[in-house]
Amino acid sequence: MARQLKLGAFMRPVSLHTGAWRYPGAWPDANFNFRHLKRMAQRLEEATFDAFFMADHLAVLNMPADALKRSHTVTSFEPFTLLSALAAVTERIGLVATASTTFDAPYHVARRFASLDHLSEGRAGWNVVTTSNPEAALNFGLDEHVEHGDRYRRAREFVDVVTGLWDSFADDAFVRDVEAGVYVDPSRMRALRHKGEFLSVQGPLNIARPPQGWPVIVQAGASEPGRQLAAETAEVVFAAPRRLSEAQAFYKDVKGRMAAVGRDPDHLKILPGAFIVVGDSVEEARETRARLDALVHVDSAFGSLSTMLGHDVSGFDPDGPLPELPETNASRSAQARIVAFARRENLSIRQIAQRVGGYSGLAFVGTPQTIADGMQEWLETEGCDGFNVMFPFLPQGLDDVVDRVVPELRRRGIFRAAYEGRTLRDHLGLPRPENRWFPAPAS
Amino acid sequence: MARQLKLGAFMRPVSLHTGAWRYPGAWPDANFNFRHLKRMAQRLEEATFDAFFMADHLAVLNMPADALKRSHTVTSFEPFTLLSALAAVTERIGLVATASTTFDAPYHVARRFASLDHLSEGRAGWNVVTTSNPEAALNFGLDEHVEHGDRYRRAREFVDVVTGLWDSFADDAFVRDVEAGVYVDPSRMRALRHKGEFLSVQGPLNIARPPQGWPVIVQAGASEPGRQLAAETAEVVFAAPRRLSEAQAFYKDVKGRMAAVGRDPDHLKILPGAFIVVGDSVEEARETRARLDALVHVDSAFGSLSTMLGHDVSGFDPDGPLPELPETNASRSAQARIVAFARRENLSIRQIAQRVGGYSGLAFVGTPQTIADGMQEWLETEGCDGFNVMFPFLPQGLDDVVDRVVPELRRRGIFRAAYEGRTLRDHLGLPRPENRWFPAPAS
Repeated sequence: MARQLKLGAFMRPVSLHTGAWRYPGAWPDANFNFRHLKRMAQRLEEATFDAFFMADHLAVLNMPADALKRSHTVTSFEPFTLLSALAAVTERIGLVATASTTFDAPYHVARRFASLDHLSEGRAGWNVVTTSNPEAALNFGLDEHVEHGDRYRRAREFVDVVTGLWDSFADDAFVRDVEAGVYVDPSRMRALRHKGEFLSVQGPLNIARPPQGWPVIVQAGASEPGRQLAAETAEVVFAAPRRLSEAQAFYKDVKGRMAAVGRDPDHLKILPGAFIVVGDSVEEARETRARLDALVHVDSAFGSLSTMLGHDVSGFDPDGPLPELPETNASRSAQARIVAFARRENLSIRQIAQRVGGYSGLAFVGTPQTIADGMQEWLETEGCDGFNVMFPFLPQGLDDVVDRVVPELRRRGIFRAAYEGRTLRDHLGLPRPENRWFPAPAS
Repeated sequence: MARQLKLGAFMRPVSLHTGAWRYPGAWPDANFNFRHLKRMAQRLEEATFDAFFMADHLAVLNMPADALKRSHTVTSFEPFTLLSALAAVTERIGLVATASTTFDAPYHVARRFASLDHLSEGRAGWNVVTTSNPEAALNFGLDEHVEHGDRYRRAREFVDVVTGLWDSFADDAFVRDVEAGVYVDPSRMRALRHKGEFLSVQGPLNIARPPQGWPVIVQAGASEPGRQLAAETAEVVFAAPRRLSEAQAFYKDVKGRMAAVGRDPDHLKILPGAFIVVGDSVEEARETRARLDALVHVDSAFGSLSTMLGHDVSGFDPDGPLPELPETNASRSAQARIVAFARRENLSIRQIAQRVGGYSGLAFVGTPQTIADGMQEWLETEGCDGFNVMFPFLPQGLDDVVDRVVPELRRRGIFRAAYEGRTLRDHLGLPRPENRWFPAPAS
């Protein structure tokens, strides 16, 4: 069988594109309308997506009032409550929630994921984040943000504690022998008794071992400590490359680090985020995208662009091209990237600002065929193991992928036509971790 | 209209009675079987219960291995994940989750309840607990338990912070004006900027104001600071009186404290826990209860009884009556209570031990008529505003209440025949709190 794509859906309820809520037919109230989320999750399950992935923040995003007032990304459902509700109205799709290792307690995190895994019969995944937004610290009793190196060392310890808590009970600990009156075998339960640099947790967890053994461990960090943490602990990585060559280098680096720590490189799936816009022709898809970008209000877009370029653009003609810019303190790679796509697509300053203010990462914009061509090329040249799909607007952008792109991927034999297993580990082809204290007897 | 009963269902998935999982027809695996919980919640909704209340612990309960191995109460779903899933498969019943003010962060707690309230369209309630189990502290990085007075001062501050976070946005802050491109009005959002004795939280919360304004605030503390906290902040109190006179005194005390702090006594509902066993005759109901108590294993029951009496009972004839006991250091009121019901029901030491090891609080054991008589008397003599019903075994004990007791209460006109409103506040007759910073304009 050909190499198979793994597909996640990276969801913000109204899409992550800043203009999406204004797009014709959009659901601007989806942030707090469960009916909409339920409908979208059920459609993704119809399309046999591996997982519904809920992004998250621990603060109202830190942006100027003028950008804030135009943003639908400010508020939405909390991931555990939303995904648990979706677990009750779906049967097979994986459910990946974000939880922070910097601003939460491992006992709580272990419990909620274990509980979600039981509720969903083995469909939970944990997106491990260290939370880089400094505003979050202020919501959790800290005066300043936790330093990057400390956050990653704590994250490493936190993941060990959580997985240790998931192993509190052997898979067969709950005997429930009605006749003898024995519900649980205490010799098949073990307290963790962890005392480390950052954390002190006794255990045992008060939840039976999850159906998947451990919920799937997901990460997104692209920094040096982020890559190392992923190689040591992650089973899915959400990457954010913009070009295939960059993706291939990342893929090779992370899979290489896995071998160095004794892990099978197949036991981690790398899924770049991919923004997908579908049309009857490539031209029509590009027009759709331009129509969407035009819904990003210029007041907020110009501010974002000026920040990214390190140069105030308000003095330029908004409908003219971007002039040569003097060198600044801003990230030179960001500036070069913006200049490159502006030249390539022949965009005015207004259009550049709206692209940057909307979504400017990896995008497949075209017909179902050209999109599938792109995805297939990335898959077959070790750019990725699949994608974390982002929809430009909802629900239409999601329906377009489900109704038009997925059938094309199936026709090519690179995406499943039906779920073969029951759990998220089954979908992703990941092994079930053995309990560290109660290994299965050798057979 | 006659005074109306409010009815909550106090749920542990397999019942809180220690012998329940061995009862014929019980679901011993309900702790982690969502299908069973869904079925029970839907039946309770059919019976128009006010709320499904999920009890909780933050540790494996601290008990000797011999008691532990016989207990189904050791592990079960985490409340937010469970109640969110139930929100998706029910329409009207309230959903009350327990969250600790000692071992959680107010930003997380505010978010999850607000999210559950949005998901359920106004059905969330927060059972505020300070967590007295010292084992819990060890799971959250503390070497010793937090002192009682500190726990209550922190709880008071915590409730203020959480309700303040719920008020972060005015009810009309989200304008979603597609044409003008304005999603939210920043002048209708406010950061809390709290700095107090225990907590420092900036805000705003990244969730729109809950449909109920605030989810309903529930408490259980019976201690002096617990009563005061309830009078100042609670809207529902789960009480644990054993006799009507005791209940009346508690009712009068708490409602009196409310008047002293300027609150309307009708804005708090007092619901004693009530264990209900239904039979065709009183005698049959008592036999059912005895059959259930007999399923509490004597090994664990004798230990519990010895602890409560402050006297080792293992030397006595288990089938004989309880002899006179010397004075000990144990709670004299607990000892006196045990001696009283043992004499009244003429129980052997084995039967006493099994009662204590099963459930020995307030119980209505009889026919639908005698049970309704008891409930009605408590309601009409200001012993309570309703009950938090505990089922002796599941699902049969729940079906008995739904199919036999509820119709009798309805026939008497003291319990609703259909939900009149949509939210938990509607069911309980509680006002929607005004936003402290964005009051509704005077009409």
